[in-house]
Amino acid sequence: MTVKQLTLPELADACGVLGVRNVGLWREPVQRYGVEAAAKLVRDAGLTVTTLCRGGFLTALDAEARARALDDNRRAVDEAATLGTDTLVLVSGGLPPGSKDLYGARERIADALAELGPYAESHGVRLAIEPLHPMYAADRCVVSTLTQALDLAERFPAHQVGVTVDTYHVWWDDRAPEQIARAGASGRIHTFQLADWTTPLPEGVLNGRGQIGDGSIDMREWKGYVEAAGYTGAIEVELFNDPLWARDGREVLEETAARFVEHVMR
Amino acid sequence: MTVKQLTLPELADACGVLGVRNVGLWREPVQRYGVEAAAKLVRDAGLTVTTLCRGGFLTALDAEARARALDDNRRAVDEAATLGTDTLVLVSGGLPPGSKDLYGARERIADALAELGPYAESHGVRLAIEPLHPMYAADRCVVSTLTQALDLAERFPAHQVGVTVDTYHVWWDDRAPEQIARAGASGRIHTFQLADWTTPLPEGVLNGRGQIGDGSIDMREWKGYVEAAGYTGAIEVELFNDPLWARDGREVLEETAARFVEHVMR
Repeated sequence: MTVKQLTLPELADACGVLGVRNVGLWREPVQRYGVEAAAKLVRDAGLTVTTLCRGGFLTALDAEARARALDDNRRAVDEAATLGTDTLVLVSGGLPPGSKDLYGARERIADALAELGPYAESHGVRLAIEPLHPMYAADRCVVSTLTQALDLAERFPAHQVGVTVDTYHVWWDDRAPEQIARAGASGRIHTFQLADWTTPLPEGVLNGRGQIGDGSIDMREWKGYVEAAGYTGAIEVELFNDPLWARDGREVLEETAARFVEHVMR
Repeated sequence: MTVKQLTLPELADACGVLGVRNVGLWREPVQRYGVEAAAKLVRDAGLTVTTLCRGGFLTALDAEARARALDDNRRAVDEAATLGTDTLVLVSGGLPPGSKDLYGARERIADALAELGPYAESHGVRLAIEPLHPMYAADRCVVSTLTQALDLAERFPAHQVGVTVDTYHVWWDDRAPEQIARAGASGRIHTFQLADWTTPLPEGVLNGRGQIGDGSIDMREWKGYVEAAGYTGAIEVELFNDPLWARDGREVLEETAARFVEHVMR
């Protein structure tokens, strides 16, 4: 998503040029390209798919909308399995129209996970609940903290349901470090994503995720937390950022790799 | 601030017409009108000043900026005392330029409160730390939750330092109800403010506080929490909202009073 201006073949090629061996994919470009074809493309390029983003949106009150969401999530599991990744990231969904009941919405997510967890397991896929920043609680994700995400995940086996740790969403939360330790202790850190916090936030607050090093988040500090919790998986950089999307994708990918080396690896 | 398009005399008159007997004031219009003159105006109109907004911005690293902030906060205490309110709301301040250290910034707030608390007490004024929504953590307020605000406040006597509970900032937080109880138990709910959560958020996310009833927050639920915690003070409606500011101020005040009756009192 960081370089969504690139087609999948351009992305695979650019990764090869830079020596990037892992890539997180989003469903929409994969579906447009064809899931089987995308799987072959990344396989042939020697790329490992770290995660597929995203399933979720599991908070509907209406029975029909709920059934559609479950169907769509089963398809997302199938796509993840075809791509060869073991992790499907879930953005849980916001409040249904007219509802003010955050608690009820969270319980409906748990109900959905009880159906989706075993389905995912049978396809070799783990679900990774992503707590989103509290500014998305109404319209995108009623799961706002790692604490809430783990309270949900721990109702299920770790190989079915874990969490996504994304610096952009948790950096402000002084409880997050201890919750990362909690997640690690039960093997539930299913992926670790980076974006920096920059201000002012843009209208709608969706596409303001800052390039690594441009904002207020100490990336090494958060890498330290997940490593101390036993995480050894890939680290994803996930930027939604209109100015970055308006630039040449290969240049943005190169810049992002350089920032990663400077602010995360060193 | 909800009707900042009104001058102070217009505001006092409009409150009289509507039977509103309490008003929260902001420093800037009071300073422009003159603090003594504003105090006389509201007194003559039979209005009680619930709180003065706002002091704070106490996170500077630089010694000179820090001294200036403390001076300004002592002036804010003086102004509150002159206006006859016992509560000064504090917006603590964001990260200094270049800093990524939320913890250090919070400790500098504690250091400042140790100086300002006794000064406020000697003027009959209580300081009310306002946790702001986590989306303001970088640039406005490193105190993002009631838990953090109370951790700071409880280092001082309750008649020196308490908290502001504002629905807009805490509605997403499933720990907030228990923290309101915690605040009430030690007499630290120094004011209770309302705004509704509406989306999409505007650029900069400052002026998107929704009119009561327009958004995702159950106002009665939160009123119930503060009342159960023993709060018997005034309830303030504090909206920063460009479309509301563009309308006739008396009409907005009347609408706000009607919404208050419909969504809070009934």
